[in-house]
Amino acid sequence: MLRKIRSKPLDSELGFGKTGSTSNRLMNIDGSFNVERDYLNWWDNTYHRLVTMPWIQFFLLILASFVGMNTLFALLYCMLGVHNFNGIEPGPFVHNFMQAYFFSSQTLTTVGYGHISPASLSSNIFASFESFLGLLTFAMISGLLYGRFSRPTAKIVFSENLLVAPYKGGRAIMFRMVNAQKSELIETEVQMLLTINQRDDNDQLSRKFYALDIEISKISFFSMSWTIVHELNDRSPLFGFTQEDLVSGHAEWMVLVKGTDEVNQQMVHSRHSYLAEDVVWNARFLPVIDRSGNGRPRVKTRHIGIYERVEA
Amino acid sequence: MLRKIRSKPLDSELGFGKTGSTSNRLMNIDGSFNVERDYLNWWDNTYHRLVTMPWIQFFLLILASFVGMNTLFALLYCMLGVHNFNGIEPGPFVHNFMQAYFFSSQTLTTVGYGHISPASLSSNIFASFESFLGLLTFAMISGLLYGRFSRPTAKIVFSENLLVAPYKGGRAIMFRMVNAQKSELIETEVQMLLTINQRDDNDQLSRKFYALDIEISKISFFSMSWTIVHELNDRSPLFGFTQEDLVSGHAEWMVLVKGTDEVNQQMVHSRHSYLAEDVVWNARFLPVIDRSGNGRPRVKTRHIGIYERVEA
Amino acid sequence: MLRKIRSKPLDSELGFGKTGSTSNRLMNIDGSFNVERDYLNWWDNTYHRLVTMPWIQFFLLILASFVGMNTLFALLYCMLGVHNFNGIEPGPFVHNFMQAYFFSSQTLTTVGYGHISPASLSSNIFASFESFLGLLTFAMISGLLYGRFSRPTAKIVFSENLLVAPYKGGRAIMFRMVNAQKSELIETEVQMLLTINQRDDNDQLSRKFYALDIEISKISFFSMSWTIVHELNDRSPLFGFTQEDLVSGHAEWMVLVKGTDEVNQQMVHSRHSYLAEDVVWNARFLPVIDRSGNGRPRVKTRHIGIYERVEA
Amino acid sequence: MLRKIRSKPLDSELGFGKTGSTSNRLMNIDGSFNVERDYLNWWDNTYHRLVTMPWIQFFLLILASFVGMNTLFALLYCMLGVHNFNGIEPGPFVHNFMQAYFFSSQTLTTVGYGHISPASLSSNIFASFESFLGLLTFAMISGLLYGRFSRPTAKIVFSENLLVAPYKGGRAIMFRMVNAQKSELIETEVQMLLTINQRDDNDQLSRKFYALDIEISKISFFSMSWTIVHELNDRSPLFGFTQEDLVSGHAEWMVLVKGTDEVNQQMVHSRHSYLAEDVVWNARFLPVIDRSGNGRPRVKTRHIGIYERVEA
Repeated sequence: MLRKIRSKPLDSELGFGKTGSTSNRLMNIDGSFNVERDYLNWWDNTYHRLVTMPWIQFFLLILASFVGMNTLFALLYCMLGVHNFNGIEPGPFVHNFMQAYFFSSQTLTTVGYGHISPASLSSNIFASFESFLGLLTFAMISGLLYGRFSRPTAKIVFSENLLVAPYKGGRAIMFRMVNAQKSELIETEVQMLLTINQRDDNDQLSRKFYALDIEISKISFFSMSWTIVHELNDRSPLFGFTQEDLVSGHAEWMVLVKGTDEVNQQMVHSRHSYLAEDVVWNARFLPVIDRSGNGRPRVKTRHIGIYERVEA
Repeated sequence: MLRKIRSKPLDSELGFGKTGSTSNRLMNIDGSFNVERDYLNWWDNTYHRLVTMPWIQFFLLILASFVGMNTLFALLYCMLGVHNFNGIEPGPFVHNFMQAYFFSSQTLTTVGYGHISPASLSSNIFASFESFLGLLTFAMISGLLYGRFSRPTAKIVFSENLLVAPYKGGRAIMFRMVNAQKSELIETEVQMLLTINQRDDNDQLSRKFYALDIEISKISFFSMSWTIVHELNDRSPLFGFTQEDLVSGHAEWMVLVKGTDEVNQQMVHSRHSYLAEDVVWNARFLPVIDRSGNGRPRVKTRHIGIYERVEA
Repeated sequence: MLRKIRSKPLDSELGFGKTGSTSNRLMNIDGSFNVERDYLNWWDNTYHRLVTMPWIQFFLLILASFVGMNTLFALLYCMLGVHNFNGIEPGPFVHNFMQAYFFSSQTLTTVGYGHISPASLSSNIFASFESFLGLLTFAMISGLLYGRFSRPTAKIVFSENLLVAPYKGGRAIMFRMVNAQKSELIETEVQMLLTINQRDDNDQLSRKFYALDIEISKISFFSMSWTIVHELNDRSPLFGFTQEDLVSGHAEWMVLVKGTDEVNQQMVHSRHSYLAEDVVWNARFLPVIDRSGNGRPRVKTRHIGIYERVEA
Repeated sequence: MLRKIRSKPLDSELGFGKTGSTSNRLMNIDGSFNVERDYLNWWDNTYHRLVTMPWIQFFLLILASFVGMNTLFALLYCMLGVHNFNGIEPGPFVHNFMQAYFFSSQTLTTVGYGHISPASLSSNIFASFESFLGLLTFAMISGLLYGRFSRPTAKIVFSENLLVAPYKGGRAIMFRMVNAQKSELIETEVQMLLTINQRDDNDQLSRKFYALDIEISKISFFSMSWTIVHELNDRSPLFGFTQEDLVSGHAEWMVLVKGTDEVNQQMVHSRHSYLAEDVVWNARFLPVIDRSGNGRPRVKTRHIGIYERVEA
């Protein structure tokens, strides 16, 4: 049976619209929304894909394009006939193709050693076009690389768990996070939303949204670790909830962080989502800051989620 | 006869100034203003044109510039005489020009095979300048390409029609929109302005502007579809209007959307305009979201404007 | 004798500090401040200079750097001796230098025809370094070109004169402006500051600052022309002033415009300054908007300052 | 003994958390925080490091990468055997390596003279890959250079000392600063925080934070010098403090400046920190502005910290 929340839920101003009861999470753990959208044209999102794909994938894609363009032009040169080129001795197809491929590569990269060179009208025209394409492609890669470098991103590491710990005589639910980038985050704000299944007045099951009060929701400098605390007092929608209540309501906490990155002075956002299964009861975080040899505080990023059990 | 609106119109703070009665639309359907401005110098808008023209036009322009520069230098080399070059056998003009053109191309792209090379002072000087220009041009193209890639744009798809539908016991005018880009839009706001011809106190016909109240004018996450609803109650300037009233007043709705694009963290704007002819009476939107195989919601962007007739 | 203003002047929150009486203008007509600042190191402002200098100067600077680097390396190759190169026949210095210069140019641009090539250890090392430098330089030029292209700028054209015209039964001081760029400006705001010499309580002459009320100080779309109007009523610091009062007080109006440029979605600023000598009494602006053939309004940017005399 | 402050300290909204008594400064003199953070992966901060390292270090790193890649490929070519190349006469290892190194350099920079060229399958494949890598590397350097150029930075020069000077019948603590960049800063704000050791209610020593009131904390144009003044009246936490009180409490002043840079229209931040040892009692700043020949005010940036002693 679902436990009833008396606080007023948020209206549809979040943008999730009216959603029936669901056991699907609304937000993935990386902060993306668990929604699919059809796109009008697949190429509309080309730039988005190229700047957000992993680096290894990006480099492989570039390499593949380079080899692909090389090969296409090599085939074209073979079709024209290798006798159109100085420096290629005609021979079997594989030999001709390899020579054409190397000429093609020297043209595409504009290295142009010249021991092979175009000798006829057609070969000259295609070689001219290939070197033009080569430059254009690398100009495009320049732009994409800068787009990837300069994309404003926050790299915030969140504790894996929400802890329910004794707090100021009562209890609080909390998580901890740290900025894992060298670039400072300033004027950082955090919001914590709860979504949980509830019954409507007409007994219809649907997902409701609640903004949770948090103790310190904005700090000037996010250079240390930051523990976000929501007190489970009688003003909290979760007052009196048990782990079973959370699980049966498919509770999900959405965490929204925004701040200003100091290197490029742009606003950055980070999101995270916790499910009912991520809550640990009667536990508290262990210290994540120690002093290095010279007395400077040091934040041990990898320990951000470490906690110990406490008595209930 | 024009129907009279009792609500106070907006003052000239929109920036359209005092405009007499007109049947011209103020905003084009793509959100640009239906205004011409003289420019002091045509080159003042070069960058604007180069980053906003369609991709196909952009590439053709680059190709044309490349061929144009190539040809110019080839003609120059012909004027100097092909005897100034190693590797060109002098011959009829067309032959000489083609050879000069290929040399020019190899120089402009810096491929420089070397089977043709400048052999005199003059040819060396021009070739040196051409290769310099070539690099400069491709540096410029790099910059333009990045400018095009990174230009903050929203790609919001609007329903083709405004619908007048039964709503909460009364009626409302509404449209629907969806973000057709993979990049999330957050903290998105929408405004809806009405412009319609009205008679002044001294019976002069002129265009008046009204801001229309909308139910949910700001959402945190625009990851689903969004229906913008203006209730036609007695606080609405359009209360009691018929289709004939709208048409005779040359009614136009201007829709202004702004939000933050998550990939480059910049504010983006989108505008749209509906005319009286775009209003469909007694209709409501069909659902645009279904569930994909794994239970995730899926937004069918192409169906954003689909509606069904309802009884009046 | 100075006319006394009764309104409270602005405090030092403008940043001009306490300045004695002066006949110097505070702001130049292009909106820059009429102040000199020493810099710690001249190179601190290199990027600023390179992206703000006129295009013609920028291109000449690049050309000069290219010729300069070319020449330096050519001299170096001459010092090594041209016998270190294949393809150069040793001869008199000028001949050697020219050959070395052409080799240098082919290396710097990486065109590398190869009819001249380095043949010794030293020549190879320097040629390798030169081609590295060449690529680095053009990478830098790419960055600078993009910096120039994408620099957020407003190109607002202001009327040359402030007009004092009859207005709503009284009088107003006004100027007119238009956005001369194709890119739309949205949410544009304007401020108008007056600075004028006044006597302190202890009869000391000093410059005071006043913010002038303007009728419409913010518009949503700056796609037409915009007339900024300050009414000369009894709440105006300038109430009852004559041209002689303005001149003897060395009155200066500073105009500050800010808005969002739609192409790159960045805030842009523009400033302008009018002196007492720029005020025309009893004049009003002639219309600057007409209708083009198809009925669209057209803004005649060049006519922004055109006015006619009216009776006092 | 610590002097007690009666004003309410700031809560933990600054982000430094609860820190015990410490003699370590919280902020370094360059405005960075005196904190270490572990990073999950060293490469996460690559871009940050590459755009923030000094220029000389950046260029040396690029040069080293270039020589390193050159050398790696040269070794590879030696392993293949120099008989795989036209134009290299096989000889002792050092000779072969040098020839291979020069070929490698000509390939990486795409200069490709062609007096050495790949003659076998394997040498062709590696040369093709090397020229591809070369272009990719220079595309990346283009992006990094632009990232460095365009990084929004403020270059504000602060006086070395805080002065305690007679002020409006009482006393004030003050410092002075100037914008040392040609680019104007507009809408500039400054905040001044004090951190000092205090005893808790339970006699525990800990660091407390106070926001200090300053006379003019925001100016429209930061084109002159700016003196930031905190009056030591009875509303100041520092009222009645002596130099000994400051030193024994390990007082530190953190100065936070933010403004909008006019060239790239971005918000920039600058921070500075003063220790108790930096305070000079009974001193006042000497003028830093004089008039240049033509009557224009001139700010002598290097004199920003110059002061004279005054009687107590």
